Amino acid sequence: MINVGIIGATGYTGVELVRLLIKHPQVSLSVVTSNSESGRQLSDVFPNLRGFVDLSFKDHDSKALNDCDVVFYATPHATAMETVPGLLQADCKIIDLSADFRLSDAAEWKQWYGIEHASPEFLSEAVYGLPEINRDRIKQARLVANPGCYPTAISLALIPALEAGLIDPANIIADAKSGVSGAGRKASMGSQFAEASENFKAYGLSGHRHLPEMLQTLTQVANSPVGLSFVPHLTPMVRGIFASVYTMQTSSADVQLIYEKRYANEPFVDLMPVGSEPDTRSTRGSNLCRIAVHPSGEGGRLILLSVIDNLVKGAAGQAIQNMNIMSGFKEEMGLNQPGLYP
Amino acid sequence: MINVGIIGATGYTGVELVRLLIKHPQVSLSVVTSNSESGRQLSDVFPNLRGFVDLSFKDHDSKALNDCDVVFYATPHATAMETVPGLLQADCKIIDLSADFRLSDAAEWKQWYGIEHASPEFLSEAVYGLPEINRDRIKQARLVANPGCYPTAISLALIPALEAGLIDPANIIADAKSGVSGAGRKASMGSQFAEASENFKAYGLSGHRHLPEMLQTLTQVANSPVGLSFVPHLTPMVRGIFASVYTMQTSSADVQLIYEKRYANEPFVDLMPVGSEPDTRSTRGSNLCRIAVHPSGEGGRLILLSVIDNLVKGAAGQAIQNMNIMSGFKEEMGLNQPGLYP
Amino acid sequence: MINVGIIGATGYTGVELVRLLIKHPQVSLSVVTSNSESGRQLSDVFPNLRGFVDLSFKDHDSKALNDCDVVFYATPHATAMETVPGLLQADCKIIDLSADFRLSDAAEWKQWYGIEHASPEFLSEAVYGLPEINRDRIKQARLVANPGCYPTAISLALIPALEAGLIDPANIIADAKSGVSGAGRKASMGSQFAEASENFKAYGLSGHRHLPEMLQTLTQVANSPVGLSFVPHLTPMVRGIFASVYTMQTSSADVQLIYEKRYANEPFVDLMPVGSEPDTRSTRGSNLCRIAVHPSGEGGRLILLSVIDNLVKGAAGQAIQNMNIMSGFKEEMGLNQPGLYP
Amino acid sequence: MINVGIIGATGYTGVELVRLLIKHPQVSLSVVTSNSESGRQLSDVFPNLRGFVDLSFKDHDSKALNDCDVVFYATPHATAMETVPGLLQADCKIIDLSADFRLSDAAEWKQWYGIEHASPEFLSEAVYGLPEINRDRIKQARLVANPGCYPTAISLALIPALEAGLIDPANIIADAKSGVSGAGRKASMGSQFAEASENFKAYGLSGHRHLPEMLQTLTQVANSPVGLSFVPHLTPMVRGIFASVYTMQTSSADVQLIYEKRYANEPFVDLMPVGSEPDTRSTRGSNLCRIAVHPSGEGGRLILLSVIDNLVKGAAGQAIQNMNIMSGFKEEMGLNQPGLYP
Repeated sequence: MINVGIIGATGYTGVELVRLLIKHPQVSLSVVTSNSESGRQLSDVFPNLRGFVDLSFKDHDSKALNDCDVVFYATPHATAMETVPGLLQADCKIIDLSADFRLSDAAEWKQWYGIEHASPEFLSEAVYGLPEINRDRIKQARLVANPGCYPTAISLALIPALEAGLIDPANIIADAKSGVSGAGRKASMGSQFAEASENFKAYGLSGHRHLPEMLQTLTQVANSPVGLSFVPHLTPMVRGIFASVYTMQTSSADVQLIYEKRYANEPFVDLMPVGSEPDTRSTRGSNLCRIAVHPSGEGGRLILLSVIDNLVKGAAGQAIQNMNIMSGFKEEMGLNQPGLYP
Repeated sequence: MINVGIIGATGYTGVELVRLLIKHPQVSLSVVTSNSESGRQLSDVFPNLRGFVDLSFKDHDSKALNDCDVVFYATPHATAMETVPGLLQADCKIIDLSADFRLSDAAEWKQWYGIEHASPEFLSEAVYGLPEINRDRIKQARLVANPGCYPTAISLALIPALEAGLIDPANIIADAKSGVSGAGRKASMGSQFAEASENFKAYGLSGHRHLPEMLQTLTQVANSPVGLSFVPHLTPMVRGIFASVYTMQTSSADVQLIYEKRYANEPFVDLMPVGSEPDTRSTRGSNLCRIAVHPSGEGGRLILLSVIDNLVKGAAGQAIQNMNIMSGFKEEMGLNQPGLYP
Repeated sequence: MINVGIIGATGYTGVELVRLLIKHPQVSLSVVTSNSESGRQLSDVFPNLRGFVDLSFKDHDSKALNDCDVVFYATPHATAMETVPGLLQADCKIIDLSADFRLSDAAEWKQWYGIEHASPEFLSEAVYGLPEINRDRIKQARLVANPGCYPTAISLALIPALEAGLIDPANIIADAKSGVSGAGRKASMGSQFAEASENFKAYGLSGHRHLPEMLQTLTQVANSPVGLSFVPHLTPMVRGIFASVYTMQTSSADVQLIYEKRYANEPFVDLMPVGSEPDTRSTRGSNLCRIAVHPSGEGGRLILLSVIDNLVKGAAGQAIQNMNIMSGFKEEMGLNQPGLYP
Repeated sequence: MINVGIIGATGYTGVELVRLLIKHPQVSLSVVTSNSESGRQLSDVFPNLRGFVDLSFKDHDSKALNDCDVVFYATPHATAMETVPGLLQADCKIIDLSADFRLSDAAEWKQWYGIEHASPEFLSEAVYGLPEINRDRIKQARLVANPGCYPTAISLALIPALEAGLIDPANIIADAKSGVSGAGRKASMGSQFAEASENFKAYGLSGHRHLPEMLQTLTQVANSPVGLSFVPHLTPMVRGIFASVYTMQTSSADVQLIYEKRYANEPFVDLMPVGSEPDTRSTRGSNLCRIAVHPSGEGGRLILLSVIDNLVKGAAGQAIQNMNIMSGFKEEMGLNQPGLYP
């Protein structure tokens, strides 16, 4: 049994952490913070939690966090970097769901986020929390940078192909579609029902903040420079990411077989039969990433389709998967739920 | 050809006025105002208008409004009441889509809106713009108070029954369901896609501002006190109001026949065959109110079902219908479009 | 550990039973039948179950059902009544989610379903599976008729008021709104996305099959004849029922207090603070019914609002709750999940 | 004034033709056919048309069609090819919204549609009805094959680049997303609300019937072989297609300028400012195709974004545009409506 805290639990990733952690057999959720809702009962803010949790929001600087074994940050960027050092000092393990520790290069971070990083000395220590490539390092980590939702879906689609040299790393297109919850729980015009419903749009073509994170991961996996065009789109649904990844196949190897082997022991990657057409619904509420490969032979196009629930494998679920690894629990613990259908 | 202005054209009713007015054969839309978007092209704010209108937003106090024959207010409440007197002075006819001139009693207005009315001397002059009961007065009016969306759907359902004494006026329930655009074009948490989608809720049970307006209309029509329980609900769609009105039938008259006669010459009320089950979709984008009656004989329940597009017959379309009447145009002019299906 | 079978697991209530039962700690799901999909893997038909269940559909008349301790029928009406006697003979306990055993009067059943009941001799033995009124009888039952979704939401809203004599039983209106999954998993025009989306409609005004079931329950609870106008509506979402129930308050008692006491020990009824406005989303995926009362004093209107997930408390979840009671398990077992939000 | 008939007006493209044609100033809609609804009033089948049209469905072989100046086929494939010759004989002009006359090669048609073409001798006469490339031929045509929805959105995105040699024609990816109405008005499991809502999926990866049509058009425009990967997706909305087209830029020319010039006189193509992010909503209900180019210089990726309403510019609207051209009317006649927003 470990003591767990969540900093910033009024966003969608925060409340999803609560939903999953209160049913986790080895977790006692003891501190949940929010500056805006401090003092209120969680279940007053989130009626779905009525009867399931008896906790009130504390301030972000609550001393009770120091007594936690694991602290999750579900805050906007540029928040965690201010207080992570203090909590590490207090011997908390940290899983940061924001972008603060995802990039290893402080200059690049500044370029994308527009301000100086407050704790650049921890960037090299932070482990990028994608268990499928970093499980051993996560096991030892004090500070895990939980991946973004798009990077999770797209990286998992590409890792086996890049590792095995099946594709041209310089020529990759990721056309990704996200549900609206990806924009976070805040009042914005573009996410209004009357704006986002019955509408499909592209955005972020001039540069999305998930791009450098993906390039960092894919370059490391490919062990060579990666050329990636990434175009995110907004689709009128609440949860789910669908990534359609277009690559040029440079090998005659059996793509399906290589993917199957690569993910054979991964508890949360489901490689579907070759030629499958996955849908986001099949992962809603679950921590699975489902992947289908559509090869067309050497010299042809290899199309990779990947689906996740952006709030689970793309955020809170993966964070708990990392917590399980860091804490020596079974990796599936508390996460072994099928998706909600319909 | 008349010159027309719109004050506050960045909300959903405002932009719907633009959509309809630019195709109106007798209207020249010459001024459109917005304090927040002043100076920008309409089509930059509303891409659906690209290629259809070449106008920039002016400030609310633009002098050009004085040269308009008709000025629409599509502003939040407590705005029109400040400047209507000046425009009347300049010989503009006014159609106010806000609530400022809907109630004839300044004290009651204050009670519901929390501030003193700025132009109480115009409350008695203002004509409530429901053509189905006030056509003759609208014809002569300088100042028309355009009805709210719920009051339009619910009043049209009840008028024939109350006029003909078919029901007990003291015992009426209006269970109404609205699409999310009814909340207006502003960033609010409750109207976020991730909040309003896949969700159904009641609201306003402690007292909705459309209640006094309905009571005023229905009392006048019934010529006796009216008892009305009004419960609005939010349904996950953009446009449309569905009103289910429950009454006690006190007469053995042929309800369908009375309704048919009452609305026989109304261009925008469609009385459906007895026992029909209307749907909101059949009115989307159109100015029609469709009504079906479900009588069960004297002493039984008479159920009235009424559907409109909240932004058309519930706001902009009805306002243009009023403009047509005030300007001596054919009442259907510019409004004679079927709903968009699917 | 009990052996469980599901007859008809290709509908939405069937697959929801699967989703919940495979995580139930005391259940071994051993037989799942479908005549149309016989021989196929469950996870081929329902990709959300990939990796969670390794079962193939058998025919409805599979002999393996005889070895089950509990068998659920998730079939259309007029199916269970044919084969229930045989399974009872084989010592299976039966929970029928269809309407076959809900009405105690065979003549009334025939009137609503148009055919002779095949097993009328079991109608009196069958226990109506609403634990909140029949828990003790369910405990002893061999055959439970699981309530319909509308009757669950509406009955739970009314039971305390009728039991305590707070309202006039002759004058009740239930205006109910259901998500589209209530129509079942079959290809129908009215449930097509392009038909049901961005649309709100009433249906079943000429008589909905859930009406006699409600009248039977409410009459029994009120111990006097009940007058109920029931109007179901279709709202564009997948899951959820919202019931707005309008009654006349005939007592000066404290309504909230009486409801609180009545449901104090009910694990799956959440009485919200007086005047609350519940939303369906807060129950999505969970077995809770949330209720709010809006009293207005003796002689005034008492409005009752009730929300459930139609597939959980309105079908599969309640069925499992009944199974737990029949099997001597803790009533919450396998059902203690908060709703999915957002 | 011309006499117009529609064969097969119970599908979504058929009813959209009705909606647009009844407001067309030069059209008298005189015959509308449906084998399944023969004899019923249009407005009984489509309540949105109540009060707007007084026509009953006739059989497909109605003799009245012979008296039409223009006949639209809004039938499934393999229907028009049977009866087009007869109507041409009767001096009707034909606009076929199905796929029967889109491919000039009968063998290729058979390969994709699985049966022999019934009227191969008309394939060479039929003009592919994309006005932006075939206006002059359409003007003279007796038989126009109206393009598919995906081919319209994708071809219009690519035509200027291929004509001007800006891109490598052998290396094109079209990742397209369609609303559910694209699947037509028929009861199918995959298009059920509970299946298609809150879900995003790819389909047709093994070969979509719109592919040969696109290849034929693009090859002709490029005057060289074209390599195209086309992946359609289903997005949870009713109307709209969003095409994201990925190409390799092989020229240093000013892409935006070339596109602007190419489409300067096209009434229904809106070239947005460079770098724009169009949304489908801005075209809903309108005949516009909006396009934005995202160049990145010679040797870089040129991304083309294109949006249409699949039922208007992607079907009925474009068909009427063709009718206008064939009939010598102003090309915009009856089509000059802005999109419905919100």
